[in-house]
Amino acid sequence: MSVTAAAGFTAAGVGAGLKPSGRDLALVVNTGPEKHAAAVFTTNRVAAAPVLWSQQAIDDGRAEAVVLNSGGANACTGPEGFADTHATAEHVAEALELSAQDVLVCSTGLIGTRLDMEALLPGVDAAVGALSDDAVSGEAAADAIRTTDSVAKTSQAAGTGFTVGGMAKGAGMLAPGMATMLSVVTTDAVIAPADLDAALREAVRVSFDRADSDGCMSTNDTVVAMASGANSDAVDLAEFQAALTAVCRDLAAQLIADAEGAAHEIAITTVRAASEADAETAGRAVARSNLFKTAIFGRDPNWGRILSAVGTTDVAFDPATIDVAVNGVTICRSGGIGEDRELVDLSGRQVEVTIDLKAGDAEATILTNDLTHDYVHENSAYSS
Amino acid sequence: MSVTAAAGFTAAGVGAGLKPSGRDLALVVNTGPEKHAAAVFTTNRVAAAPVLWSQQAIDDGRAEAVVLNSGGANACTGPEGFADTHATAEHVAEALELSAQDVLVCSTGLIGTRLDMEALLPGVDAAVGALSDDAVSGEAAADAIRTTDSVAKTSQAAGTGFTVGGMAKGAGMLAPGMATMLSVVTTDAVIAPADLDAALREAVRVSFDRADSDGCMSTNDTVVAMASGANSDAVDLAEFQAALTAVCRDLAAQLIADAEGAAHEIAITTVRAASEADAETAGRAVARSNLFKTAIFGRDPNWGRILSAVGTTDVAFDPATIDVAVNGVTICRSGGIGEDRELVDLSGRQVEVTIDLKAGDAEATILTNDLTHDYVHENSAYSS
Repeated sequence: MSVTAAAGFTAAGVGAGLKPSGRDLALVVNTGPEKHAAAVFTTNRVAAAPVLWSQQAIDDGRAEAVVLNSGGANACTGPEGFADTHATAEHVAEALELSAQDVLVCSTGLIGTRLDMEALLPGVDAAVGALSDDAVSGEAAADAIRTTDSVAKTSQAAGTGFTVGGMAKGAGMLAPGMATMLSVVTTDAVIAPADLDAALREAVRVSFDRADSDGCMSTNDTVVAMASGANSDAVDLAEFQAALTAVCRDLAAQLIADAEGAAHEIAITTVRAASEADAETAGRAVARSNLFKTAIFGRDPNWGRILSAVGTTDVAFDPATIDVAVNGVTICRSGGIGEDRELVDLSGRQVEVTIDLKAGDAEATILTNDLTHDYVHENSAYSS
Repeated sequence: MSVTAAAGFTAAGVGAGLKPSGRDLALVVNTGPEKHAAAVFTTNRVAAAPVLWSQQAIDDGRAEAVVLNSGGANACTGPEGFADTHATAEHVAEALELSAQDVLVCSTGLIGTRLDMEALLPGVDAAVGALSDDAVSGEAAADAIRTTDSVAKTSQAAGTGFTVGGMAKGAGMLAPGMATMLSVVTTDAVIAPADLDAALREAVRVSFDRADSDGCMSTNDTVVAMASGANSDAVDLAEFQAALTAVCRDLAAQLIADAEGAAHEIAITTVRAASEADAETAGRAVARSNLFKTAIFGRDPNWGRILSAVGTTDVAFDPATIDVAVNGVTICRSGGIGEDRELVDLSGRQVEVTIDLKAGDAEATILTNDLTHDYVHENSAYSS
């Protein structure tokens, strides 16, 4: 149901001609009555023009529309690229009779090339004309932000007096290029901008931030949340947080699952860590080890590569007591040889790695993929 | 000429049967008159048994022999593995009538399996019997520490009154498993242990530490330097430093050049950095970007992936002024589109990336490889 699942939103997805074929321009509009919004952006210091624009536009906790394009990241394009983003926002604002300051812009695709504005601006007009609050339009918007994603990603959840809907693109191992992920999440909840902002940051922290397909940080990553207040019931903040987090986690899992280059989806859960940060750090170190990722591709439960990755971090653990299990088999016990590695079945697509640090009671799960021939092929054969 | 190039050293390389075929056990002995030594080890907290042993054995700045084996890393093998290392040192000590505390041990191969001591100890006896100061023995030692290295790596340099010789194994993209690199460097210089230690640390810092084939840190990395004092001439420390650094740099370049999985050897030079540390950090971030490395494999000068990697660091630079050149073509100028990327020729094996941070006058070069199908194949098809 995507971004139109919640009341108070219209959406559209059209083909503007930025890509050789298919849809490439999406528009999501908050029809209110409230126009609250929050956003989280890439921390990459080389931020794309649309990120720089949207960062200042969201400053007041208010947004009425998000326009998103695939077919070009508009990153590293200098003042001209920023002018293109500005012109896009102005064009949307004029067509919808809004202030450009209430229009967020997201772009995804190749870095270092200008957008074809002569195609993009008419595309905006087409999208405005196609806006609707029906499910089909929500799906079309989710489709239009795909780059090499094999499927559109959407999710929704509901709580007492509210619905949360969302869409996302990218990540996985093939898609990313650098423009790894964009996501728009909508809700009809009545929620203050500050509460929406806090809820979004918490949801992103435990979802998108823990999906690490290849360790490469995008110049364009953006997650936008918009609240229309169209459902006038009071909302319980904890319940809203749970629903928002569920949608973000579902979308993050879909990003990892759509890694065409990947042969395995890997969940690395670190338990009994001294802190949640430690658990995340340990899991991320393993997720970023090419040697671990190629071993999983080769169906080799090479736990030495897991320990070796954890050993590069500063998390609290004793190399002489750490345990590691892969798909339920504790092949490393007390830092040494455990159960027979031949017992580990890696023939399926799902891989569960459990790292027991024995240093506390915190835990976290990082989602990643294996490193495969197809990853190399996708990312070497196509400029993205 | 390897480790026997300097006067005062004997060496041997034999086949003990730890690997299916070929040599797998090397011995290097300092015949004096001085027995000064220094060593640098992996900073991985999951350090192999031979690393733990050698760290305490080198503490007094003295070593008379180094025994090295391929065919097993003896890492994550618990107290039993440490006992195996200890037994190896004791065996060498008995055969050579030394103290075991003057015997360093290095191992390389698969993590998490015990060494075959019934093969290893007789191999030590065979190596002792084969010790010689001739060139052939030095080459045999270099050969015996190979894992999947396609060639043995040796180097030498000379200065006024001294010679430096060295051997190394591993690294590159295929070899590593986790047991990435071992190196032994010998000299006949008269040099105090503290001076030797300082010189080795500086040499390693600008050589092996800047060869980053896949970002994975070994549990077994060890670089040993031994000084026999067999050449009684006084040595100029600066000249010695230059020779030692030259040997380490030559060996590091050979490691990167022997990456069978690699199709390109990439030198990433960061110039006009605020500090040498900044230059190293920027280069290392690029060297560890799988997206950059796959792009080079695909002969795609995708400079967006370079900027994106630099943007993840905290080094001093302005995204609006940075320049990037690949093989002499400045394809990114002032953070935006520079010369035509079609002008970049990536058909050769050597790739020079220059990142101009415009933030100071420091520079550093990181050596790496591209990420190829063969890397995935080597590291998924074989447990290492």
